[in-house]
Amino acid sequence: MTVELISIGTELLLGNILNTNAQYLSTEMAALGFDMYYQSTVGDNFERAVDTIKTAVNRSDIVIITGGLGPTPDDLSKEAAAKALDLELFLDEESLNSIKEFYKKTGRTMPEANRKQALFPKERCTIFPNSNGTAPGCAMESKDGTVVILMPGVPYEMKQMFHSFAKPYLEKMSNKTLVSRNVLVAGIGESMLASIIPDLLEQTNPTVSPYCKPCLVTLRVTASAETKQAAACKCDKTVNELHKTLGENIVGIDVGSIENAVVKLLKEKGLKLATAESCTAGKISAAITSIAGASEVFDFGASTYSNEMKQRLLGVSAHTLKLYGAVSAETACEMSRGILNYTNADLGLAVTGVAGPGQSENKPAGLVYISLSDKNHTWIERLMVGKAENDREKVRNCAVTTALDLVRRYLEFLPKTLPGHYSEDSPTPIVPEQFALSMLNK
Amino acid sequence: MTVELISIGTELLLGNILNTNAQYLSTEMAALGFDMYYQSTVGDNFERAVDTIKTAVNRSDIVIITGGLGPTPDDLSKEAAAKALDLELFLDEESLNSIKEFYKKTGRTMPEANRKQALFPKERCTIFPNSNGTAPGCAMESKDGTVVILMPGVPYEMKQMFHSFAKPYLEKMSNKTLVSRNVLVAGIGESMLASIIPDLLEQTNPTVSPYCKPCLVTLRVTASAETKQAAACKCDKTVNELHKTLGENIVGIDVGSIENAVVKLLKEKGLKLATAESCTAGKISAAITSIAGASEVFDFGASTYSNEMKQRLLGVSAHTLKLYGAVSAETACEMSRGILNYTNADLGLAVTGVAGPGQSENKPAGLVYISLSDKNHTWIERLMVGKAENDREKVRNCAVTTALDLVRRYLEFLPKTLPGHYSEDSPTPIVPEQFALSMLNK
Repeated sequence: MTVELISIGTELLLGNILNTNAQYLSTEMAALGFDMYYQSTVGDNFERAVDTIKTAVNRSDIVIITGGLGPTPDDLSKEAAAKALDLELFLDEESLNSIKEFYKKTGRTMPEANRKQALFPKERCTIFPNSNGTAPGCAMESKDGTVVILMPGVPYEMKQMFHSFAKPYLEKMSNKTLVSRNVLVAGIGESMLASIIPDLLEQTNPTVSPYCKPCLVTLRVTASAETKQAAACKCDKTVNELHKTLGENIVGIDVGSIENAVVKLLKEKGLKLATAESCTAGKISAAITSIAGASEVFDFGASTYSNEMKQRLLGVSAHTLKLYGAVSAETACEMSRGILNYTNADLGLAVTGVAGPGQSENKPAGLVYISLSDKNHTWIERLMVGKAENDREKVRNCAVTTALDLVRRYLEFLPKTLPGHYSEDSPTPIVPEQFALSMLNK
Repeated sequence: MTVELISIGTELLLGNILNTNAQYLSTEMAALGFDMYYQSTVGDNFERAVDTIKTAVNRSDIVIITGGLGPTPDDLSKEAAAKALDLELFLDEESLNSIKEFYKKTGRTMPEANRKQALFPKERCTIFPNSNGTAPGCAMESKDGTVVILMPGVPYEMKQMFHSFAKPYLEKMSNKTLVSRNVLVAGIGESMLASIIPDLLEQTNPTVSPYCKPCLVTLRVTASAETKQAAACKCDKTVNELHKTLGENIVGIDVGSIENAVVKLLKEKGLKLATAESCTAGKISAAITSIAGASEVFDFGASTYSNEMKQRLLGVSAHTLKLYGAVSAETACEMSRGILNYTNADLGLAVTGVAGPGQSENKPAGLVYISLSDKNHTWIERLMVGKAENDREKVRNCAVTTALDLVRRYLEFLPKTLPGHYSEDSPTPIVPEQFALSMLNK
């Protein structure tokens, strides 16, 4: 079966937003075993939208449309799809009530403009509720059985609707069974991965597709077979090969995110973490608390942006700051020990670095020191993010990922393989250069 | 003049990479004053590529193709474009020498496969050299004068070629000038905007297009005219109308982000802000410090997730926590006063709320209290984010935006229009329900 995507929205044609929906849905369609030959983008123009939908309906079995389901006059995807499929729109009372309810919950009255979001065909149409917004989606069917799926353009609304309604709807149409596993990998970049596992990245069943975030790669392993069990078996074989090659760099299988893996491990071990952040200034505490139930493992984080606050709250010595600078292994070490002393936590995690643009204390943008202390020891990691001059957020995001990964390695492997060991007897912490990469295959 | 984009590459249809080229080129085409009505993506398939190019050439004046200029057999964009335009390809000696030179520089010999990258039509074709890779691009012309531009898919090769060769080529073809202004609006949702300014959202020159983030809308006003001055004049007229209608809800014009607007205002007034965050746990301090130079206005933020830390660091009283709960106007108030007392900042900003999923202290997910203190007064805002059960991050992001907007309103309008006034004499702060919305048109 063939599928194609249509993204509707003038903001895409003007370049105001990046079309992340197209990538997300392409991946999902590949995982469902559908073949995709075309993607199109059109603006908020009725005639052009109708023409584009008609062309798609004539050449594909499934057409997925995102965007243009809002309440404003230029939102016209549903109207265009209905026109292309020769269907009429009527008010759906149930959808109207849901939209009214959505407003009521926030103490507001539904504006009259939103009424059009409750219009749907009475026949050949399955309505998809929207739990994150006012725009319901739907699956319309042509007389020949081609399916046209409409979903909102706002990514988090679309993803929720896809997962809860569109995907189950499409799964019934697929004749292959696919199983996927997401292998989360930290400490190895995409190009290094390409040189370590070139064969795996080129094989076809299962496929191994890398998706990259700063300092983090998800390898999506997807196998197809006639039964779920057979597909799962193929998948697991490849996952095992990845385990052998990537070892401790694997954060987990289907763990969702590194913060989720860390919170889960902390809960399992009954440990609490406290954070002291300089260049990341709250990004680590925000990441940890993005996981529901984080209060079991997290009480307090300090964004000590100024040297004064590093001294006052964390007890970093003026001598250390003067001699080594705020961005140094020594300061990072005193920060993680300081936050541990200040709180009742079992682990103190600290980050200090140069986010850029431009250097600081004669140190280059992209240089970050990360320190983790428990009651007896401190581990330090030095991170150097390349080509960082123009990307402050990339440096900060890499620092967050690498810091969380240090906690993850501590919790999983302590103490046998963690380098950078520091004890009370030794005044100078060991600072392994390129620690993250050096962990590979250890 | 109309332009359209065609991205060629199976990796896009499989979702393996994000199409950032489309956004980049869309922005550039809008700036050149060309109208874009369509974007398409096709895989590495000769027939489908030829068909897609033919359709584009028939309906647009300019067609820009990226991808498919590599040396492998599945790279066939140039061959497909030549076929669509009825042109033949011949070896271009100058291009071949450049490719050989590129290999020579890295100490290698050109593989025979790369020879095809030097094939170009002898007529109706301008070759664009590639300074970052082996694949030259070109502009081919149809017999009717439609221009087809071919560039590599690798973003840094494409950008360099666009800037040095394709853009100058296209500039000669443009006869319109476009000017855009981005009006950032807080405290009014998209649907409410649609009912307040329906006429503006429907007008055509300038156009007004809304782009939504949690609790924040950007209205992009775009005007076209024969001169830059005339376009700017048209733009400014609409921006003035928006100012009249939306008043203090306008965060700024072309300010980039609300955190940027807040940091700029703090710098202008020479004030420092400190934060105490419970449910957002560092997201506000992370947002502020995402702006380079934030250290002038920000020293310290505390993520006081537990009640114990709210008491210890911020001095929130056990009595208040017991009587009103951690999520209450009273606790928010003591948090913002507490962080102000603890630091040398001029303003203390605090957030406490139920991010969800599920309720807490019998209070619903989505309920957030935000408090802002200066040395004499405290202002409190109550935010209720609807349908929050399944989206913890949406609640947190709305809280961040609304908190930053409270600081922005304080800095811009103090004290004449800020409700929720609280003085030392009055033991109970005034808590205006739906404060953000109540500010509208005040």
